[in-house]
Amino acid sequence: MELKLEEAIEILERTPVILTHFLSGLSEGWLQNREGEGTWNAEEVVAHLIEAEKSNWLPRLETILQYGENKPFPQFDRFAHLKNGAQNTLEEKLQEFKILRLQNIEKLKQLVNPELHFELIGIHPEFGSVKLRELLSTWVVHDMTHLSQIVRVMAERYREDVGPWANYLGVLKRK
Amino acid sequence: MELKLEEAIEILERTPVILTHFLSGLSEGWLQNREGEGTWNAEEVVAHLIEAEKSNWLPRLETILQYGENKPFPQFDRFAHLKNGAQNTLEEKLQEFKILRLQNIEKLKQLVNPELHFELIGIHPEFGSVKLRELLSTWVVHDMTHLSQIVRVMAERYREDVGPWANYLGVLKRK
Repeated sequence: MELKLEEAIEILERTPVILTHFLSGLSEGWLQNREGEGTWNAEEVVAHLIEAEKSNWLPRLETILQYGENKPFPQFDRFAHLKNGAQNTLEEKLQEFKILRLQNIEKLKQLVNPELHFELIGIHPEFGSVKLRELLSTWVVHDMTHLSQIVRVMAERYREDVGPWANYLGVLKRK
Repeated sequence: MELKLEEAIEILERTPVILTHFLSGLSEGWLQNREGEGTWNAEEVVAHLIEAEKSNWLPRLETILQYGENKPFPQFDRFAHLKNGAQNTLEEKLQEFKILRLQNIEKLKQLVNPELHFELIGIHPEFGSVKLRELLSTWVVHDMTHLSQIVRVMAERYREDVGPWANYLGVLKRK
């Protein structure tokens, strides 16, 4: 096991900061780009991260701590952010994500003691038994997945523009 | 063509800022992680970006502007940063990258007029004819390639730790 609570938190607290410095003030051409129909642009990825802060990580963590194997996790709709409207600006979304994340890190620190809780088991509605430490590791790698997605979606814009260099640019190979 | 000079600069100026907020103060466990022997850790990627600021983008751009098709680009050794020692700390590297990048963006703004120069042709030692606008697009996507690489290399650390979620985390599928 590589997971350490403090190191996981190092990533969790950086993600909203990185996203703000990356996306705030960027041209619409970058922000609106997609990899094709039905795929997410950068702003939709941020909306998905907000939804996961609200309905995924902490609710699941609390379910494990309170009910263990006696109650499956509440459902998380990975597409909820697409239905919940786009009334907020990107700046508001980035701010909301930052605040929710900070609150959730505080709760995480209060609730979880690695020695006592890492091996606790909860019930995922699809996978069955999962450990609290697996949920926590997934929270971190989920951030990385979506950071990586945003970079990839933007790079896609210049796929043709790079000409003969396309074969040497790893980010264009990862669809 | 999607490339616009101002939009390209938006990304170029963000990369050192994102990397600083991402990597500065991070635990060694994250910073030293690799995808295997012969692959780069995050700090080596930053060293490679520094080397490219010094020996790749501006020297090639200036070669096109001065000599066009009459002189091939100077060689760029993609592994030079591994030979040039690791005497600097990560913090020093991040600072060096930031300063070099700012200087290069200034030069870029002074030297390149999109209407006059985007279609100018230079000679790449391997590919032959390339356009100045292809070199510039590549600079941007090269940043994205290495941002994406750093995220991927770190995510690799928790490959086992995420348990049954591994199949749902895109960043773990992209090696």
